[in-house]
Amino acid sequence: MIGYNALKDLTKKILIHFGYRTEAAEETARILVEADARGVASHGVARLAFYESNLKGGFVDLGAEPEIVHETPLSLVIDGHGGVGPTISRFAVDRCLEKARAAGAGFASVRNSNHFGMAGLWAEEAAAEGMIGMAFTNTLRCSIVTFGKEGILGTNPIAVAIPAQKTPFLLDMATTTVSYGKIEVCDRRSKAMPLGWAVDEFGRGTTDAHLVVGNFEKGALYGGQLFLGGEGEALGGHKGYGLALLVELLCAGLSLGTWSAHVCEGKGRENGITHFFAAFRLDLFGDREKIESHIASILEEIRASERVEGAERIYIHGEKERERRHRTMKEGITLDEATEDLLESYCRRFGLEVPF
Amino acid sequence: MIGYNALKDLTKKILIHFGYRTEAAEETARILVEADARGVASHGVARLAFYESNLKGGFVDLGAEPEIVHETPLSLVIDGHGGVGPTISRFAVDRCLEKARAAGAGFASVRNSNHFGMAGLWAEEAAAEGMIGMAFTNTLRCSIVTFGKEGILGTNPIAVAIPAQKTPFLLDMATTTVSYGKIEVCDRRSKAMPLGWAVDEFGRGTTDAHLVVGNFEKGALYGGQLFLGGEGEALGGHKGYGLALLVELLCAGLSLGTWSAHVCEGKGRENGITHFFAAFRLDLFGDREKIESHIASILEEIRASERVEGAERIYIHGEKERERRHRTMKEGITLDEATEDLLESYCRRFGLEVPF
Repeated sequence: MIGYNALKDLTKKILIHFGYRTEAAEETARILVEADARGVASHGVARLAFYESNLKGGFVDLGAEPEIVHETPLSLVIDGHGGVGPTISRFAVDRCLEKARAAGAGFASVRNSNHFGMAGLWAEEAAAEGMIGMAFTNTLRCSIVTFGKEGILGTNPIAVAIPAQKTPFLLDMATTTVSYGKIEVCDRRSKAMPLGWAVDEFGRGTTDAHLVVGNFEKGALYGGQLFLGGEGEALGGHKGYGLALLVELLCAGLSLGTWSAHVCEGKGRENGITHFFAAFRLDLFGDREKIESHIASILEEIRASERVEGAERIYIHGEKERERRHRTMKEGITLDEATEDLLESYCRRFGLEVPF
Repeated sequence: MIGYNALKDLTKKILIHFGYRTEAAEETARILVEADARGVASHGVARLAFYESNLKGGFVDLGAEPEIVHETPLSLVIDGHGGVGPTISRFAVDRCLEKARAAGAGFASVRNSNHFGMAGLWAEEAAAEGMIGMAFTNTLRCSIVTFGKEGILGTNPIAVAIPAQKTPFLLDMATTTVSYGKIEVCDRRSKAMPLGWAVDEFGRGTTDAHLVVGNFEKGALYGGQLFLGGEGEALGGHKGYGLALLVELLCAGLSLGTWSAHVCEGKGRENGITHFFAAFRLDLFGDREKIESHIASILEEIRASERVEGAERIYIHGEKERERRHRTMKEGITLDEATEDLLESYCRRFGLEVPF
């Protein structure tokens, strides 16, 4: 158990020891700790190890500054030049929201960036000021397309926030069936995965998490995760693949950037991941308060609708994480043992005090 | 087998016999025949029976004119006043594209409309002029939310078109696992459905298509279709539900319209379905041709990637339907027997010549 501010402070110090500049360390620490505060451990401070290995791998240039390479009153294209993901995204989202405030809508497409944390954090900023917000990103290659066997697409998440009275709707989902983290859990516990999560190197559905994690770790070209709807077309796998490809084209396509198949190929800093952000104002459609209240009434009716036997509650997207955050702000954040061990090892290495 | 123009002509005549005005009949015939030409029979001329029953049910006002109730340089809100879906959508999409041409982006939210046909047809119009196009709609209630058992959401399709050199990417998908039409096929053939398509009146997964179709036909409040990812959360059912809810909020939320749970409740014409259209120009992000060529190169690499054993081809979304259309424009459209019978019965009723 550790307090929000203490964890953020420690994370920031570790990032500064990695070589991050103060502002980049601050923004990166914020997005990592926000994820832990919401119970999204897969995007929390445990990612420090991944961030360090990206740095060592030569994929992150801590001195790079994001550059606007194209701009209109509604839009901008940003080249991140291989800099820090959250710094580049902060730059892009600030300008995207500025445009939406002034013109009604804003779009930002970004190339040569790095991991930007939990997509929903960027989308929800728009909702706080009465706008619909969207954030998408491609990732490292890991997922197969329908009828394919190469892991050429990323997990390509979709995040959309829609303002509503009291609390916004916040959808934040990888377009794969599950996050890679869930496959790792099955691997660690030697548990079979359900069919529909991943395929082997021949492109055939598998329940063997050791195999899938092994293939991923050796950087195998074949096999990988399945998209929402699973294998083939019977349960709609081609739809999940379509959503992932949509994300890929909005991110890599519009920015003239690198698509997932080639992200981080070789050592260059000009093959980083790509993002797409969009925001548009609710009052484009009339009175903001009336619309927010109408949306809230739809969500309330869904919450109150009848449940299947044994189910405790019907959730609206973003609710679970918001309630978790509310709790952790009072009670502190619980990290798993592996993450505590990781932080302890950084503390020892950098001569920092262990805060738990 | 019937030619495209002959089928369109006949459909238009039948609609005029229903009481449709010439322009509404023309636009409706076009969207129905376009769906058949692409092999999307579920949204083709077989829908004439559904359109007639909507008319008899008092849900469509053939004299209604769409009205702009709110407008900004980027956006408009349209009240369809219960008129003809394709007429209202034609009106909305024309104005949405006009705005995008002039300002870079356009958004149209629509309430009190009716069935607008295949969503992708509306989205792809933007792509033809170098814009990204989106079309969403809610529908009649038929699908359950994660952990729920009431069929309160619609099939809520998502259509997005992205221009690319030669041929656009066109994703056009119901957010349910499959279309209702596929469940009907299992019902007719007394075939078990896969688990993940639908639930019974207790909210439990079922393979019994007779049961599901029976429940739907008697207007049961409980049971219905599952969203992409199926039952519960193990295969991502909460993600499919989230996508459907996103569509619902963009359509019913932004237009202050009726959400799926209450569409066509009672006899009024002010509880029709809702749509949302958006378009934004590719050149917001730089040179249109460069971007279209980059997107085409991503699609080409995916097409050429390695296939799982036994698979003939990796498809890009929209490709199958476009090729089918190309064939049917030369060879004619093949309708199934039930649809031919339906058209024949209309011909007899209205004294029209049977064209096949």
